[in-house]
Amino acid sequence: MKNERNFSAFLLTDRATRRYFSGVDLAEGILLVGENKIYFADRRYYLLLCDKLKGTDVKTVPFESLADVKRVLEENKTEKLLVDYSVTTVEEYEKYKGLGLPIENAKPILDETRAVKTSDELAKIKKACEIIEQAFYKTLPKIREGVTETEIRAALESECSLLGAEGQSFETIVAFGENTAVPHHETGETKLRKNEPVLIDAGVFYKGYASDFTRTVFYGTPSDEFKRVYNAVLSANELAEEKIVAGMTAKDADGIAREELKIKGYGDSFTHSLGHGVGLEIHEFPYISKKCEYVLRDGNVFTVEPGAYLDYKFGVRIEDTVFIGGGKVKRFFTDEKKLVILK
Amino acid sequence: MKNERNFSAFLLTDRATRRYFSGVDLAEGILLVGENKIYFADRRYYLLLCDKLKGTDVKTVPFESLADVKRVLEENKTEKLLVDYSVTTVEEYEKYKGLGLPIENAKPILDETRAVKTSDELAKIKKACEIIEQAFYKTLPKIREGVTETEIRAALESECSLLGAEGQSFETIVAFGENTAVPHHETGETKLRKNEPVLIDAGVFYKGYASDFTRTVFYGTPSDEFKRVYNAVLSANELAEEKIVAGMTAKDADGIAREELKIKGYGDSFTHSLGHGVGLEIHEFPYISKKCEYVLRDGNVFTVEPGAYLDYKFGVRIEDTVFIGGGKVKRFFTDEKKLVILK
Repeated sequence: MKNERNFSAFLLTDRATRRYFSGVDLAEGILLVGENKIYFADRRYYLLLCDKLKGTDVKTVPFESLADVKRVLEENKTEKLLVDYSVTTVEEYEKYKGLGLPIENAKPILDETRAVKTSDELAKIKKACEIIEQAFYKTLPKIREGVTETEIRAALESECSLLGAEGQSFETIVAFGENTAVPHHETGETKLRKNEPVLIDAGVFYKGYASDFTRTVFYGTPSDEFKRVYNAVLSANELAEEKIVAGMTAKDADGIAREELKIKGYGDSFTHSLGHGVGLEIHEFPYISKKCEYVLRDGNVFTVEPGAYLDYKFGVRIEDTVFIGGGKVKRFFTDEKKLVILK
Repeated sequence: MKNERNFSAFLLTDRATRRYFSGVDLAEGILLVGENKIYFADRRYYLLLCDKLKGTDVKTVPFESLADVKRVLEENKTEKLLVDYSVTTVEEYEKYKGLGLPIENAKPILDETRAVKTSDELAKIKKACEIIEQAFYKTLPKIREGVTETEIRAALESECSLLGAEGQSFETIVAFGENTAVPHHETGETKLRKNEPVLIDAGVFYKGYASDFTRTVFYGTPSDEFKRVYNAVLSANELAEEKIVAGMTAKDADGIAREELKIKGYGDSFTHSLGHGVGLEIHEFPYISKKCEYVLRDGNVFTVEPGAYLDYKFGVRIEDTVFIGGGKVKRFFTDEKKLVILK
């Protein structure tokens, strides 16, 4: 009986997905994954690719046009192509149609596969988490009156680099005062004043894998309202980490933190999802959101990042990167999350 | 008579294109450009967006789902949507179909529009070019025996930052010795030895606009073969800049350098296109390649970057970012391009 899988091939262009299946990082190229793995790169990248893939089971083919891919598909008697509709543009899709094969969406299979991390992947994410956590605590003493957001960002990123990060996994957010009320504040020249909150959201790449970390600390003496919000967000964070288990949907996981913030009176102030998958990409499947029906399982890595934002006043977000192991949530970070007050 | 333009709207998601039409940079959002400009952002970005757009003619609408876009399209009696097929994914396209309007490809109109830079855009690119050129020459003295590629990259990027760059416009390439033979070499821990070439390809962003710059210098005493290749590439670069004029196709522009390298005996060693457009993106339309039929005109900004790569030996690339003004090519850089020999 003919095994259908042998006759379909994934045609992958997305950089992270190509890295996932080939083990190597290349800026541009096309990777076919079927019975064999065949990697196409044009002349700018071809020698580099051959070098990177030495000793692996991935074959290389020089790429000049899609005719090269067509030839290989025919040689392999491929009958169906799978392409990821979430990254394939309409323009590319029209070109792939010229390959003369039926095309289906690879996204659901890719999501399911990449969402369950191997122990090797978990180890890399753990290291990425260690780096950002250490860099953050090394940067804390630099928080003082008059320092700017960009100065704190530079200090943090420099620590990350010294600790072995390959780079930041996304644009670092440093927010002071009422800027903390904007979840995606753009780090700028705002100077820190006495009695203001400081929110830092940052992460790094280590061997291709990302970490994501947010803490909100206070410089000076926090108001009672700030402390109430902080404790509500912390409670949502800790409750979610305690109650999320394998077998639960991502939607229900999101609901745990959402319900807790609602009970504490800040339901409307939690304006985003609870979290997102983390791996070769900083934001990847599964999304821990109201809309995601994915059933969580061992090996999933995602963020738990409830927040509450009071427009034009302040905001608090507390974010861990976690994984599911033995059916339960395990943290990669090791710090306590009680409010840090800097004087 | 009904003006068709008033009844079509561009639905823009691509960050650079949204920035182009709105004047502001936002990580995520949807911009409708028709009779009016209407910018949608979800709650994470909405306050930030309103703040950025204060005093402009762009209206803002909070985004929860595409139903919000549908409502606005109906209010504006839009009859046709234009989306960019080169950045719209198949998944997004399927969702946009649910808006109930005919959809056409916006790409040709967007390309034509963005390819002709205003004087304000040219001024920003000029500044981005000044920064990378100065940073390069300030970094040259650091090139000495035993230094690593990553050390030179760090020194160069630090100079860029001190000179006011917002960031690098792409991953800096620093290549020593035979690494120069790989056009897209990944900067690594290779140490410089005596009598080796050094290739540096780098650029910065300034107020959102990019620059792109490559020079190949020699540390020690170059062989006759190296000098021959260098002079062939330089000749191709200079001839192209002299002969490219408004009214010529991008294809023919590419042909000038290609023919020159062929005459000099290095036709097969020039393995990529002559150049690419530069603007809000480091690689944008028009592409100065064999395949591009675009007719060059005043206001176009692009790179002129012939190269010759001798596998496992060495490579040379010399790249200017230029524009067309008064029908002719004008350089943004001011340096001579004669071979720099470092001792």
